[in-house]
Amino acid sequence: MKATVHVMLKSGVLDPQGAAVRHALGTLGFDGVDKVRQGKVIELELDETDRDKAQTTVTAMCEKLLANTVIESYRVDIA
Amino acid sequence: MKATVHVMLKSGVLDPQGAAVRHALGTLGFDGVDKVRQGKVIELELDETDRDKAQTTVTAMCEKLLANTVIESYRVDIA
Repeated sequence: MKATVHVMLKSGVLDPQGAAVRHALGTLGFDGVDKVRQGKVIELELDETDRDKAQTTVTAMCEKLLANTVIESYRVDIA
Repeated sequence: MKATVHVMLKSGVLDPQGAAVRHALGTLGFDGVDKVRQGKVIELELDETDRDKAQTTVTAMCEKLLANTVIESYRVDIA
């Protein structure tokens, strides 16, 4: 079973990577870009075959390791 | 218009971040994780209102800046 985790900085938390990308796009002539946020995506291949159990396990992984829940939010998609 | 870009290392390219995450999950007691790949997700807010034009623009951004197409693949989603 495949799980995809998206980890983004919470809104309100300064995102210097996103700001750098936005600035670089501007210097390359890409105008009309209002806001850029950069985050992480983590794809996991799990042995687990039960969808609900996989969701629970991956959520625990996010809470313990994959996301810093003070400043980051995460979303788990099981496919 | 909002665009989301996923940038992942191509399969076959060594992913040390993914390997580190997999190892760390193992030490935390999460077994049954076969493979981990880590990539970037970039969310862009665009002034553009035409869907096709936005797709074209963001693809150009990926080719020029957001992805290193030698080792990375990208996917553009316009929402």
